[in-house]
Amino acid sequence: MKILQTVDFEQMERRYRAAFFNTAGGFKPVHLVGTANGEGKYNLSIFNSIFHLGANPPLWGMVIRPHSVERHTWENILETGFYTLNAVPEAFFRQAHQTSAKYSREVSEFDACGFTPVFHRDFPAPFVAESPVQIGLKLVDQMHVSLNDTIIAVGQIVCVAVQEDCVGLDGYVDIEKAGAIACTGLDAYHRTQRLARLSYAKPDTPLHEIPTP
Amino acid sequence: MKILQTVDFEQMERRYRAAFFNTAGGFKPVHLVGTANGEGKYNLSIFNSIFHLGANPPLWGMVIRPHSVERHTWENILETGFYTLNAVPEAFFRQAHQTSAKYSREVSEFDACGFTPVFHRDFPAPFVAESPVQIGLKLVDQMHVSLNDTIIAVGQIVCVAVQEDCVGLDGYVDIEKAGAIACTGLDAYHRTQRLARLSYAKPDTPLHEIPTP
Repeated sequence: MKILQTVDFEQMERRYRAAFFNTAGGFKPVHLVGTANGEGKYNLSIFNSIFHLGANPPLWGMVIRPHSVERHTWENILETGFYTLNAVPEAFFRQAHQTSAKYSREVSEFDACGFTPVFHRDFPAPFVAESPVQIGLKLVDQMHVSLNDTIIAVGQIVCVAVQEDCVGLDGYVDIEKAGAIACTGLDAYHRTQRLARLSYAKPDTPLHEIPTP
Repeated sequence: MKILQTVDFEQMERRYRAAFFNTAGGFKPVHLVGTANGEGKYNLSIFNSIFHLGANPPLWGMVIRPHSVERHTWENILETGFYTLNAVPEAFFRQAHQTSAKYSREVSEFDACGFTPVFHRDFPAPFVAESPVQIGLKLVDQMHVSLNDTIIAVGQIVCVAVQEDCVGLDGYVDIEKAGAIACTGLDAYHRTQRLARLSYAKPDTPLHEIPTP
């Protein structure tokens, strides 16, 4: 094993350090975030910083770097209060990655990268038609992380569109069956293969496998 | 597509809702969190709520539910200020899941579930010897999410032990090569297969693949 400490981290070149800590943290979800600005122009951007905060009410967090290329997305969320998170399907991972390019404000990444905006019920932000799990959120809180000037946006889920055959009787959404992928770092994409779902663990009791949809 | 809205979420049975929103959010990292209490007794618990907050300084967040089975871990972190995050290798996913059982305070999950505590340099919390990516953190901030009474613990990485052949020349840590796995929801584990690493995206420029270690 290679052992590294703070003094070593400080000597890392900036991009090396970003790649190192981004990938060392484990597999991440990857979403396309859909927004509209006040004039109804659409924006689409790839994010890999979504995390589950709770189910009742359903809350997800999202890490925002205010001065990065994600700023159009964040400005739209602040302006309208709504955004969508759309799971990236395997067949579209290159196009999804391409949304991270610095397009000008006049260009919609839906058009530039080949995705289709779609709307459900009265939710005001665009979903991605190609995605098997489409989630609509309302911004309900934001926390400032003073240590590195990032923001944690907290969204409450108010609308879900999901491929029907991927939802199990106990609520388990089989995103692998739906074709969703995982990512590592800022640029690597992975398909998955489930090893097992395991039963609720108790001391001195053998685990067994749970069926999936 | 099945469309669901807030009124539908409110009618879901509690465990159904927890499974639904936990799995719909995408693939997650999975770590064993190692701690010691003030008397030097070790604790080990599985977590799937780690997220990257920034690389300089290297900061990761972790979602804590203060009243859950994770409370021993959180009490130890508050008492000592230090904890370790250890990537779960595929061969150990059943044992890792078993650490979520409600063992009494007298039992160390290292012993009960078959993991080996190991120490690096002067870091005060136990790492997991079986893990290919072992991260030592110092608690530097905590944020209270008032909407659902959870805590986001912010840790600064101060020590890393990583399998040497998995670190690329540009800092990319190949956790797939290291044998780390992903999870969905609270109970499903997945191996991965990389599709590609993609180059930095620019408008109107074709993407190309980047080599991995």
